[in-house]
Amino acid sequence: MLNRIELLDLVHRALREDIGTGDITTEATIPAGATARGVILARATGVVAGLEVVRLVFSELDRGLTVISKKQDGEAVSPGDIIAEISGPARPLLMGERVALNFLQRLSGIATATHKLVELVRGYPIKVVDTRKTTPGLRALEKYAVRTGGGHNHRFGLYDAVLIKDNHIAVAGGIGPAVTAARRRAPHTVTIEVEVENLEQLEEALTAGADLIMLDNMDPATMREAVRRARLRTMTGRPVRLEASGGVRAENIVAIAETGVDLISVGYLTHSAPSLDFSLELDLGRNK
Amino acid sequence: MLNRIELLDLVHRALREDIGTGDITTEATIPAGATARGVILARATGVVAGLEVVRLVFSELDRGLTVISKKQDGEAVSPGDIIAEISGPARPLLMGERVALNFLQRLSGIATATHKLVELVRGYPIKVVDTRKTTPGLRALEKYAVRTGGGHNHRFGLYDAVLIKDNHIAVAGGIGPAVTAARRRAPHTVTIEVEVENLEQLEEALTAGADLIMLDNMDPATMREAVRRARLRTMTGRPVRLEASGGVRAENIVAIAETGVDLISVGYLTHSAPSLDFSLELDLGRNK
Amino acid sequence: MLNRIELLDLVHRALREDIGTGDITTEATIPAGATARGVILARATGVVAGLEVVRLVFSELDRGLTVISKKQDGEAVSPGDIIAEISGPARPLLMGERVALNFLQRLSGIATATHKLVELVRGYPIKVVDTRKTTPGLRALEKYAVRTGGGHNHRFGLYDAVLIKDNHIAVAGGIGPAVTAARRRAPHTVTIEVEVENLEQLEEALTAGADLIMLDNMDPATMREAVRRARLRTMTGRPVRLEASGGVRAENIVAIAETGVDLISVGYLTHSAPSLDFSLELDLGRNK
Amino acid sequence: MLNRIELLDLVHRALREDIGTGDITTEATIPAGATARGVILARATGVVAGLEVVRLVFSELDRGLTVISKKQDGEAVSPGDIIAEISGPARPLLMGERVALNFLQRLSGIATATHKLVELVRGYPIKVVDTRKTTPGLRALEKYAVRTGGGHNHRFGLYDAVLIKDNHIAVAGGIGPAVTAARRRAPHTVTIEVEVENLEQLEEALTAGADLIMLDNMDPATMREAVRRARLRTMTGRPVRLEASGGVRAENIVAIAETGVDLISVGYLTHSAPSLDFSLELDLGRNK
Amino acid sequence: MLNRIELLDLVHRALREDIGTGDITTEATIPAGATARGVILARATGVVAGLEVVRLVFSELDRGLTVISKKQDGEAVSPGDIIAEISGPARPLLMGERVALNFLQRLSGIATATHKLVELVRGYPIKVVDTRKTTPGLRALEKYAVRTGGGHNHRFGLYDAVLIKDNHIAVAGGIGPAVTAARRRAPHTVTIEVEVENLEQLEEALTAGADLIMLDNMDPATMREAVRRARLRTMTGRPVRLEASGGVRAENIVAIAETGVDLISVGYLTHSAPSLDFSLELDLGRNK
Amino acid sequence: MLNRIELLDLVHRALREDIGTGDITTEATIPAGATARGVILARATGVVAGLEVVRLVFSELDRGLTVISKKQDGEAVSPGDIIAEISGPARPLLMGERVALNFLQRLSGIATATHKLVELVRGYPIKVVDTRKTTPGLRALEKYAVRTGGGHNHRFGLYDAVLIKDNHIAVAGGIGPAVTAARRRAPHTVTIEVEVENLEQLEEALTAGADLIMLDNMDPATMREAVRRARLRTMTGRPVRLEASGGVRAENIVAIAETGVDLISVGYLTHSAPSLDFSLELDLGRNK
Repeated sequence: MLNRIELLDLVHRALREDIGTGDITTEATIPAGATARGVILARATGVVAGLEVVRLVFSELDRGLTVISKKQDGEAVSPGDIIAEISGPARPLLMGERVALNFLQRLSGIATATHKLVELVRGYPIKVVDTRKTTPGLRALEKYAVRTGGGHNHRFGLYDAVLIKDNHIAVAGGIGPAVTAARRRAPHTVTIEVEVENLEQLEEALTAGADLIMLDNMDPATMREAVRRARLRTMTGRPVRLEASGGVRAENIVAIAETGVDLISVGYLTHSAPSLDFSLELDLGRNK
Repeated sequence: MLNRIELLDLVHRALREDIGTGDITTEATIPAGATARGVILARATGVVAGLEVVRLVFSELDRGLTVISKKQDGEAVSPGDIIAEISGPARPLLMGERVALNFLQRLSGIATATHKLVELVRGYPIKVVDTRKTTPGLRALEKYAVRTGGGHNHRFGLYDAVLIKDNHIAVAGGIGPAVTAARRRAPHTVTIEVEVENLEQLEEALTAGADLIMLDNMDPATMREAVRRARLRTMTGRPVRLEASGGVRAENIVAIAETGVDLISVGYLTHSAPSLDFSLELDLGRNK
Repeated sequence: MLNRIELLDLVHRALREDIGTGDITTEATIPAGATARGVILARATGVVAGLEVVRLVFSELDRGLTVISKKQDGEAVSPGDIIAEISGPARPLLMGERVALNFLQRLSGIATATHKLVELVRGYPIKVVDTRKTTPGLRALEKYAVRTGGGHNHRFGLYDAVLIKDNHIAVAGGIGPAVTAARRRAPHTVTIEVEVENLEQLEEALTAGADLIMLDNMDPATMREAVRRARLRTMTGRPVRLEASGGVRAENIVAIAETGVDLISVGYLTHSAPSLDFSLELDLGRNK
Repeated sequence: MLNRIELLDLVHRALREDIGTGDITTEATIPAGATARGVILARATGVVAGLEVVRLVFSELDRGLTVISKKQDGEAVSPGDIIAEISGPARPLLMGERVALNFLQRLSGIATATHKLVELVRGYPIKVVDTRKTTPGLRALEKYAVRTGGGHNHRFGLYDAVLIKDNHIAVAGGIGPAVTAARRRAPHTVTIEVEVENLEQLEEALTAGADLIMLDNMDPATMREAVRRARLRTMTGRPVRLEASGGVRAENIVAIAETGVDLISVGYLTHSAPSLDFSLELDLGRNK
Repeated sequence: MLNRIELLDLVHRALREDIGTGDITTEATIPAGATARGVILARATGVVAGLEVVRLVFSELDRGLTVISKKQDGEAVSPGDIIAEISGPARPLLMGERVALNFLQRLSGIATATHKLVELVRGYPIKVVDTRKTTPGLRALEKYAVRTGGGHNHRFGLYDAVLIKDNHIAVAGGIGPAVTAARRRAPHTVTIEVEVENLEQLEEALTAGADLIMLDNMDPATMREAVRRARLRTMTGRPVRLEASGGVRAENIVAIAETGVDLISVGYLTHSAPSLDFSLELDLGRNK
Repeated sequence: MLNRIELLDLVHRALREDIGTGDITTEATIPAGATARGVILARATGVVAGLEVVRLVFSELDRGLTVISKKQDGEAVSPGDIIAEISGPARPLLMGERVALNFLQRLSGIATATHKLVELVRGYPIKVVDTRKTTPGLRALEKYAVRTGGGHNHRFGLYDAVLIKDNHIAVAGGIGPAVTAARRRAPHTVTIEVEVENLEQLEEALTAGADLIMLDNMDPATMREAVRRARLRTMTGRPVRLEASGGVRAENIVAIAETGVDLISVGYLTHSAPSLDFSLELDLGRNK
């Protein structure tokens, strides 16, 4: 469930951006009293996400516009499927069309790309997770789309989990001191993850007591060895999980899943997923 | 040149989104007095866009951070090329990294995709233009990236040009009345464009005196006939330009350009271009 | 039709400015349960504009306030005419009074001033247009008031039309190069206007292919010659329109219209039109 | 001294409104490296106000722009007087011109109109004060302009003084109960003013112990009698001041001042003062 | 009555702060269709304040949530008292709980602390007033809570009353010149107060014609003498009131009241009052 | 390290709240050219927090104001200690005083209260942590103050950790299902905490695999038994930590620490800590 107050802010900004000082085409050609009914149709195959945003776009523009969802976020759609019906005054309906579709297409594109990867590794005890490589300003929405597609969320920002990278390690004086510092200062509610590039660093991270270890661009054989060592550690002490990261695509995700890692993070889901195509078809009427 | 006030707002929002209540990793592992120098490196081939945004991300986070551009927006980059150097306090440098790269990667991705299409039709008297299918909140930046890649901008919103579509035509009672209404009510500074699906509608639009006519999903042969008629009209009266639209990709853009249309609009540039990869490599020091 | 999201922002700002930490008079003297009915009356003759804003002022302050318009924007009003009725809780009704009237008086003042000039040149094939000399923050509303008074809008900002002035010409190396540069770089959807001070510059602008030419402070005889040359050009090639600008007032607008120019721009409409007087008369009741 | 944080907000909004997605004329015709020097010149006679706003408009748009004031707010200016010099990058200088002038012209217009009235009653022990009939969003600036012109400020909003009008009196059950309620509930730091229409009401207000009494649209003879009674009261007890209000103009202000009232409030100063004309003249250069 | 537009802003900010990218506990454990009913219970003895804010917290989060107040602001409450009932969708009800209670607890804490002092001096002709030592961003609400507890408000900011302190006196050249300058330049609607530390300064302030004199940290005997002199002045000329300030607590407030001062200002009310405890008890259901 | 962008927003809001339309006392009594130097002095014993905010208050109000810290956040201060020196233009220095002190006093009050509790349990392997019972809008700052006082942070909002309470348990059908649902749906980077009221619920939470268990208002004997069971579990499997919660004060914190729980959460730190007193003493000069 998205935070309504945040959504209002995003929707208002998008409407101001697109409509600005007014829709000069609609004002010139559509009478003030005209009404309309329309449907949003899928024009491609995928997973829909963003219907609540679509509803807000229209209702914020005009309280008289009604939106009835015909699909739920997370449902599969095919070309021609009706996603939602909108009815009410024709002018705001036309004015909100592009903004509504822009949100819907981007979010559904992310949900669809996520769903494809999730399906490929169905049956493996693994989670497909996102990254912070999101569109500036839209992170909460894009991470919602990842969840809608069956994926899971990695941290939302620099504030809600510790991820120790090479630069932090270098300054802190090694993985051990870095993990110790984080354990001492970060909130006890967050996990501490360390990014490692080889098995030596993996050992250091295991010894330091990391909760999560990110395997950065490792080959499957090395990952398998990492999994073996991590499981040994989990059985004999503090549990640890492994996350594969770097260059994950449909072509190699099954091979990665087979190594036994717990998580696969995929930046592609939010920075490069193509949008999913939808259109808005209208019946225009006129008030008596 | 981007509007600095708008950029500040976008950059502030992005930094608040990513950093939130604080970077718990950096605070735990990097001393307050540490300094750093870093470089942004290209990791793929393309066209760079967004360096002014990168500069603002760091300078807004800390006035002590200095950014020196090594490339200009619009320049070609190859893997390993240094794009910019950043130096100053280590903590804010690390905190701004992801936001800076997220902007840079998206904008450079758009510039790169645009540049590829523009190169394909180099030599034809045609412009590659964008659409309103942009990321909500980022339209001005994304349209800047299109220009940076050698493309041109279509209208920025519903407010700065008239585009009469089927719904407007239906309510207004035909292309003629719709164009007349727009000519009477819209500011005299904007052009009036009509979307047509066949040659009959084209004739109506020519008769109505449209400034621009969008050929929606026409095949090349029909487009060529449309071009012939439009040129005839331009020679004998009010000039008119034609815009090809719908499903344009690298595979078919040359065939479209050969028809003689004046403009080709491509939604893909902003709604589905993959991001261009960059990384930030740091040298970390410590103040004496 | 105004953009509701923009209106909300303006109305909220105005209410915060006037009410601040609270209406100490109303809180002390009006019981929480009191209700009231009131009417907005015209106290001068003119054209009303801004009723939608009036409605929002009251409904945003309290959802229980109802506003019924008795006039439409653009209608003529005389002293004593009832413009709107408002009813509901007495406290917010009193608190919103001044803000509602401040918007209404300013916008109606602009509509009235515009209407007077438009009436003077009725019968001439000419448009009275506004400028960018508007109140900071209220441009969209003020340009709406110009339309409501029968005028037309010039560009809304620096972003939606090209207007090449002497400074641009000087740096670009002449009118020809400036127009060429604008034609190459500005969106194809906007018109290109050049400001000229004499007939030599006019010739340059015609040769350069400007869409619009602004005649800056020319006398009627020179304007007539400019019209003659522009019509010749329109008949034999690219159409061009002329805009008279500078010092236009009721006293000289007919003389300008008689020259045959297409547009007359008047900064006075938005920077110096006096406000139109309205008052709010109340019947106060008390809830049982 | 204006509140810098409020000014920043106003200036940012005005710049976003005018520049929007970018200045397409300047970007096309002025090279990025060009520099310029310019002067703001008075084109009419009056009192200048708003130089601090002018400075912020340019410095917020580009930190490299320098503004040197040649006049102080409150000084008299004549056509041709140089008000300020601006130098730096040519593009932002051109982009900020209109916004800077729009602020300056409006504020100087108010200061000039105020100054004229203040001069007319110089020598009388009276203050010319403003009202809440200001432009929505610009009240603090407009009231600053009134002070700059030699006037004084009445209350800034509903929050900083009590003004009991007919509606409050009607519901509270008379002037006495209304003043008593206000005295009990409003902050002790604010004055309590009552609006009266005749001498009976004046007596009630005097008896109730009002600090200020507004004489609404009274003729001079009645005002003189009101002054006589108020002075009697002040000599024998709680001091009280009288404010003349309603239809004050240059034509009748001296007659009002002669009645001996303490204050004259003039809505015209902020709702209908014409703007004062200024222009920006540039010398454009180009960086080596 | 609070300004609804200001309240909306505060409530939105608080909800964004607490909910951020989403309530991960509620989303995981509470089905989307579940409904709930709950009551807010007092868990301590005091005075309630903030019910309108509580209502807005829930209604802004979800229009389907209904809040019914069982107490009015200003009423006494005891442990176990039901303050309000809330019903509707379970998810937003749970999400808004903490924000609603945080506002209610703080405001009721202030009202309770105020009420205690007000009760102690009941019967004395004195007002307990607040200061500007409030929580940044919450001043209007906190001063409302003081009124709700039976106290009165001192000035709301630097803008709505003059308070001349030692620094102003030093630069202005004495109390006399400072008061004269303020009388000449500040709005006539505000009172002029001077802070004095001894009887010599008191005399200067009386001579200068201050409306209010703040007795800074004086002992009761000195205050009594100050009262004697002030009353003498009030009887023979311009009335003046005295305000005791500095270190006021329950232990010494009666002794101060007995000196006869008119006002006692207490910073403690807003900067150090402990919060009053409330809880939200829920019955959770599930939609059929 | 605080997020500078967030700080700017808080500081701007606070300055707008206090200064509003202008500081009428300072404007009347302090010449525009006057300069000043001042020191912030401690007037009580405690721990200082908020110096970065103090710096921003003055520098945002006027770029010419310089702030030099004499203490670091987290240092102990005694009455008379100089905390910081400020110098520059006198007007903005006086205008920023109250806002700067309001931030400093509140944050230092929290740091001081935290430090007292932390000192009491020094030597025990336990962390004193805060809650979400913070001032609306100031959470990040208040939690920073807790860290500055030697405490640690619990979750920052509903978004960055799971905390399953009785209502969630009731709807989810027990502790086991609730933890399982959270484990499946919440980000893998956050810990899952369960609130329990007795040892039966503790057993359920241990069986369900909670990462943290909050012991709600338990007596020390029961807590000790809970600790015994939790340690047993940690030794034989997934580690678990215990948090004591409810009514923690200086009087009972040592008894709680002795039970061996890992964390003690204290709402009092942020909802009821009294502010720490500071003052600003000025030397005022005047520019030559």
